[in-house]
Amino acid sequence: MSPRPFFAIVAGVGPGTGRATAIRFAKEYAVVLLARKPENYQDTVAEIQKAGGQAIGITSDVSNPESLTSAFETIAKELPNSKLAAAVFNVNGGFARKPFLELTREELDEGFHASAGAFFTLAQKALPLLLESVPTSPHPPSLIITGATASVRGSARFGTFAAGKFALRALGQSLAREFGPQGVHVAHAIIDGVIDTPRSRSYSSSTVEDAIMKPEAIAESYWHLHTQHRSAFTQEIDLRPYVEKF
Amino acid sequence: MSPRPFFAIVAGVGPGTGRATAIRFAKEYAVVLLARKPENYQDTVAEIQKAGGQAIGITSDVSNPESLTSAFETIAKELPNSKLAAAVFNVNGGFARKPFLELTREELDEGFHASAGAFFTLAQKALPLLLESVPTSPHPPSLIITGATASVRGSARFGTFAAGKFALRALGQSLAREFGPQGVHVAHAIIDGVIDTPRSRSYSSSTVEDAIMKPEAIAESYWHLHTQHRSAFTQEIDLRPYVEKF
Amino acid sequence: MSPRPFFAIVAGVGPGTGRATAIRFAKEYAVVLLARKPENYQDTVAEIQKAGGQAIGITSDVSNPESLTSAFETIAKELPNSKLAAAVFNVNGGFARKPFLELTREELDEGFHASAGAFFTLAQKALPLLLESVPTSPHPPSLIITGATASVRGSARFGTFAAGKFALRALGQSLAREFGPQGVHVAHAIIDGVIDTPRSRSYSSSTVEDAIMKPEAIAESYWHLHTQHRSAFTQEIDLRPYVEKF
Amino acid sequence: MSPRPFFAIVAGVGPGTGRATAIRFAKEYAVVLLARKPENYQDTVAEIQKAGGQAIGITSDVSNPESLTSAFETIAKELPNSKLAAAVFNVNGGFARKPFLELTREELDEGFHASAGAFFTLAQKALPLLLESVPTSPHPPSLIITGATASVRGSARFGTFAAGKFALRALGQSLAREFGPQGVHVAHAIIDGVIDTPRSRSYSSSTVEDAIMKPEAIAESYWHLHTQHRSAFTQEIDLRPYVEKF
Repeated sequence: MSPRPFFAIVAGVGPGTGRATAIRFAKEYAVVLLARKPENYQDTVAEIQKAGGQAIGITSDVSNPESLTSAFETIAKELPNSKLAAAVFNVNGGFARKPFLELTREELDEGFHASAGAFFTLAQKALPLLLESVPTSPHPPSLIITGATASVRGSARFGTFAAGKFALRALGQSLAREFGPQGVHVAHAIIDGVIDTPRSRSYSSSTVEDAIMKPEAIAESYWHLHTQHRSAFTQEIDLRPYVEKF
Repeated sequence: MSPRPFFAIVAGVGPGTGRATAIRFAKEYAVVLLARKPENYQDTVAEIQKAGGQAIGITSDVSNPESLTSAFETIAKELPNSKLAAAVFNVNGGFARKPFLELTREELDEGFHASAGAFFTLAQKALPLLLESVPTSPHPPSLIITGATASVRGSARFGTFAAGKFALRALGQSLAREFGPQGVHVAHAIIDGVIDTPRSRSYSSSTVEDAIMKPEAIAESYWHLHTQHRSAFTQEIDLRPYVEKF
Repeated sequence: MSPRPFFAIVAGVGPGTGRATAIRFAKEYAVVLLARKPENYQDTVAEIQKAGGQAIGITSDVSNPESLTSAFETIAKELPNSKLAAAVFNVNGGFARKPFLELTREELDEGFHASAGAFFTLAQKALPLLLESVPTSPHPPSLIITGATASVRGSARFGTFAAGKFALRALGQSLAREFGPQGVHVAHAIIDGVIDTPRSRSYSSSTVEDAIMKPEAIAESYWHLHTQHRSAFTQEIDLRPYVEKF
Repeated sequence: MSPRPFFAIVAGVGPGTGRATAIRFAKEYAVVLLARKPENYQDTVAEIQKAGGQAIGITSDVSNPESLTSAFETIAKELPNSKLAAAVFNVNGGFARKPFLELTREELDEGFHASAGAFFTLAQKALPLLLESVPTSPHPPSLIITGATASVRGSARFGTFAAGKFALRALGQSLAREFGPQGVHVAHAIIDGVIDTPRSRSYSSSTVEDAIMKPEAIAESYWHLHTQHRSAFTQEIDLRPYVEKF
């Protein structure tokens, strides 16, 4: 297969949304999968390649600027003639659910770095490339952010997690307003439910069908966001299972 | 062409979103177009039929329960073996932009009846049919609502318009929470911009390309909402041109 | 006691917020209590008078324009030399909590008329008087609205109640933006909890102290809203018991 | 004057909200003023003392945990028999208003540390003391947070500022939900306007009276929040001049 003229980056690939998004975007683009450990992306890369797609996995800590710079250098070498059409930020900081008085300042800072910090770094690398693609990309170049319920609600004992997610959403809004008029689509998705992965299936007690979110369904909405015409961009969507109370 | 097994209703068809939505949904379903005047739907019905689709236009005032009952009787006769897959509420009450002290109580009530009232009536007719379609519909049966900036913001001198739109949004949320768990997808779209119609083009002074919203782009997002998997329903999206300040 | 130069109207007086608000505002103003039945205001009027305050009760259905016009005529006769400093809209439409398909259009319309409709009518009577008081009132003339959780959330089976409350909030926002710059303070309070009345005490099972809202505490916040300096107006506050989950 | 049994901390004192809040709370409590430079609090301390109040100024960088620990040690020595009734977080990180691609990661982190980070540190020191005061404090012990328009809106080129303010709001919500049921009132104020200080007066061109916010008016609302009965706590208020567009 000849190299594809456009590629997408999925930052934060595991068994859930990141994997499904990579597979969905690989139908049209080359895809670059970033994860902290090779085992997080190897199977997905192989699966895409086996289906005739073009995929590259890069071991990278997105929250670390040096590591991300190195990843973008690798991308430039591996895909020299391909342009960036979409970047999906799907990094999930682990969260400390604790009484506030047991938290440390380090846990607060880590939560922030894993979400708003890592996104900031990725966005600074990706936006110049997305701007370059505006005139030629088949769809408006897109920067898509995975948020959570904690992006809009600071629940008890979820303070540090929510602080990071609120900050991430703030950055997403600000970038949508700055880069939208330049033709880049910045969208934020509030994922309000448990995602179907081998791990969540093991602890979910629900026997209701489709009560946990199919990663493929989330990926389909991300693809829709990417393909929206620039006269009708969505800045924010929520996604949740039909049975979810909200 | 053999009659299609499923149909969609578009309530409120004019030259903009309603027309484009009917054309989009007609790719997969028979479509029923409701408007107060035949000239609002005739051309669209003809266009769909010419393209090989199945379309029916019915003259009906959606805000009037008797008129709507009659329209549903006509639908039952015309499409006896077809089931309802989607209903799109796209009725726009004309709005009185006036100093509050010049408004009349009738203008307030009209704004309410044209939005929340009309939607209530349509939803009571459509939901029993949508529930029936849950087991067989190719996509989750859907009830999609066209909202506006005034759905989330009561601007000065827009009080009566906003009152109707806020109330419409309230009903949409309540129905999403009641009927979602039963398999019907209720979604609300905030259209935050001017829509491209012959009339809006005549008064829009913008020379920026795609600065006003393509109805086809809105329709594409409505179609996406309809096709979302039930494990990842969206309750609310915003849609606006890339150049819109917000 | 000599007649007071300013008065406040409390529309919607029963055993809870309305009563406490009348008592609080009577410390500084003459107060007019509007309720549909004399037994709703008689005791409160007597209590205020006994404490040396000035109070008038008027039997009126605020949601009915003719009834309200008549009430304002009575006020003009009874308080000929007093000016309006504050009006508090505290009318609670009874709400039908039902499955949507069992509701009637009449129930929807009643919910709307009892909230947004009644407020509209009161606001049209009160705002001209409040505007007149801007130059002389001891505090910025105020129009204060009692909202509820349903003002910002359309829960399942609460659709008609929420439709009315959302619409009421929309009007409040719109009036705040139109009349704020003219010196009238329009504020909306989201009461997110059960209010302590003889009736609610009878069915509340909570044994936690202060778990239901003291009407006097709500009234104190309404008084604060009224006394805010015009350089720092609040448009919306929430009020809930310290133990309330939200 | 005998030492007062309760004290309030105002963290972040300059010529605006912090100063006015200290003066307002000094009517009932001893007050501790924290600022990075003595010149920021010296005059206010003197003014309070001259009026017969009890005030202490401490030079401290609230965003620095060691500096804050040292400040609390000083407080314990200076006010050995006084209990904490209220803490007001009023620290304003300077903000970088820049195109996103010109920002550095350090600027993002600084914005976060100056707002959410500093608040986290203050809250961890203050909350144990506030909890201790629950049984005896004349009003519910309070933790009050100064927010801004950027707490709820990520504007173009305000990304790093908004990220910090959104995160701060998230922490405030989380603490309100965790500590409210324990009797501590955590409230967040969205200050949506320019505050009247010598500096803002010098660049404000408005000739409209009261178009910029009086710090005393903000302080009065903070005092009201502090004195709210626990059966009717406010979690969030907005404050803006009557002429402000919003």
